[in-house]
Amino acid sequence: MQGTVGELGEFGLIRELTARLEPTPAVDLGPGDDAAVVKAPDGRVVATTDVLIEGRHFRRDWSTAYDVGRKSAAQNLADVAAMGAVPTAILLGFVAPADLPATWATELMDGLRDECKVAGAAVVGGDVVRGDAVTLAITALGDLQGRRPVLRSGAQVGDVVAVTGWLGWSAAGLTVLQRGFRSPRAFVEAHRRPEPPYHAGPAAADLGATSMVDVSDGLVADLGHVAAASGVDIDLRAADFDVPAQMADIGQAVGVDPLLWVLSGGEDHAIVATFPKSVQLPARWRVVGEVVRTARPGRGGRVTVDGAPWERVGGWDHFAAE
Amino acid sequence: MQGTVGELGEFGLIRELTARLEPTPAVDLGPGDDAAVVKAPDGRVVATTDVLIEGRHFRRDWSTAYDVGRKSAAQNLADVAAMGAVPTAILLGFVAPADLPATWATELMDGLRDECKVAGAAVVGGDVVRGDAVTLAITALGDLQGRRPVLRSGAQVGDVVAVTGWLGWSAAGLTVLQRGFRSPRAFVEAHRRPEPPYHAGPAAADLGATSMVDVSDGLVADLGHVAAASGVDIDLRAADFDVPAQMADIGQAVGVDPLLWVLSGGEDHAIVATFPKSVQLPARWRVVGEVVRTARPGRGGRVTVDGAPWERVGGWDHFAAE
Repeated sequence: MQGTVGELGEFGLIRELTARLEPTPAVDLGPGDDAAVVKAPDGRVVATTDVLIEGRHFRRDWSTAYDVGRKSAAQNLADVAAMGAVPTAILLGFVAPADLPATWATELMDGLRDECKVAGAAVVGGDVVRGDAVTLAITALGDLQGRRPVLRSGAQVGDVVAVTGWLGWSAAGLTVLQRGFRSPRAFVEAHRRPEPPYHAGPAAADLGATSMVDVSDGLVADLGHVAAASGVDIDLRAADFDVPAQMADIGQAVGVDPLLWVLSGGEDHAIVATFPKSVQLPARWRVVGEVVRTARPGRGGRVTVDGAPWERVGGWDHFAAE
Repeated sequence: MQGTVGELGEFGLIRELTARLEPTPAVDLGPGDDAAVVKAPDGRVVATTDVLIEGRHFRRDWSTAYDVGRKSAAQNLADVAAMGAVPTAILLGFVAPADLPATWATELMDGLRDECKVAGAAVVGGDVVRGDAVTLAITALGDLQGRRPVLRSGAQVGDVVAVTGWLGWSAAGLTVLQRGFRSPRAFVEAHRRPEPPYHAGPAAADLGATSMVDVSDGLVADLGHVAAASGVDIDLRAADFDVPAQMADIGQAVGVDPLLWVLSGGEDHAIVATFPKSVQLPARWRVVGEVVRTARPGRGGRVTVDGAPWERVGGWDHFAAE
């Protein structure tokens, strides 16, 4: 395809984008009407929205349109999974400059579609408008299949903290890119295209998870939300994290303690949950800490590492000074 | 409240915004977790997304933040109603410059909340990020309550075309504003804050509507989508439209045929539907035309006025030259 989205026009662009989609059995009505209709057999629907802006959440010179699509779908679908639900659908609000190559838009849609496919979902609708900065507003929907939603507020003293998925890979890859390198490839790829363990969310709910969250801002930061919502203190054990040898090598090369990436790096969308000690966790869950006590009155719950505060790079405040 | 959203910070802003919300019985879980949980008793959920950008879809000097909130919620909730569903929830993706006054954000949220209340829905979640242009990505959800969704594709030859709600008021108000005036107030208000007849969507479905759409781009343009999807030609009768005397006066003052506003003006979010001739329509529906024939093969369905093409301002192409 040649030309720009401006040359295609709104309806031409919508036609090109929707032509690439593949429905699932959960899609009663896809794009093209006032609204989509998606099955919600549970009788409740899980819904979440994220906005991604060029230059802030992705860079067109570091990631292909396809990877941006994969990644932006992944971060929303992971939120659905972290409630204990199975993703069913996403909707895309798409702001594009008129001079954006049409292929960028169609490859973005291919990425959204393919990531949805991994999670068992489908793109069911959206909106395209013209604007100065490429902006994606993604809404993901999911079905709880009869499960109670697993909230941030349910962690109990004595629970173990367990994690599954990748930790620190995206942050290590970002550091590599920031230094002007394109390898090691595995980490750069992890930054461009996270692989959230979607299946682990509903599975954790079935195993009896008391709280759950996906790691989008960094493990310590996201567990901080769990600690605050549950009114508990959480302690992580640094020795229980697995720092891959290659990540340690990158750390040495760039002068960064790789534990920083593992504990504070976001965007891998690992899933972390608390479970009663009695739960037998499948092999791919790694126990990395414990809910140690009720938070002191008047002070929100906090997260420590080996009993001490983790004072390094915390979570990400989108309005903090850059 | 004083200061800017940058001074509040991401979490402070989210706290201020969510503090203003009021849940409904359909909200199982509101903002604050990875995702919201909304009841979908029908077992299907209706979902639609629209994006609005400052300068393109609204102007901060013409509309208050509260009105922008009302309007942006209204246009999405109307899409849900036009499927024959009852709106249940909206999610907000909110892009804001760091120097945006915090009161602008909170008043926006008040507007979203109050428009939701009119429609029986609630704001259940969202995302805030920093960016250059104020941008709102709104997703609305709804419940069909056992109804079949009313699509654009179901219009049948012989059906009457009927409309309920306001037509041309927003466009007349916009013309007034563009000429630098602030009155007549009723039309300016209609532009700032549309009043879609939400109840009429599900009611039309129950009455047996064969197709339905809300008028967001202009009656002829939106009926054009119905004609195309249904493969039929539609003829409207100009004499059957009610042009209010005050609208005629504005038209005369600014040299515009008010029928242009009625037939081509968008953003009032009236609801237009086709019904079998046998249906007894309630008083607030106005029959304004008929589905006259099957579209000629190889040519999409079209909309005429008194048998002639309506060649004036058509629909709105978001990527067309400005």
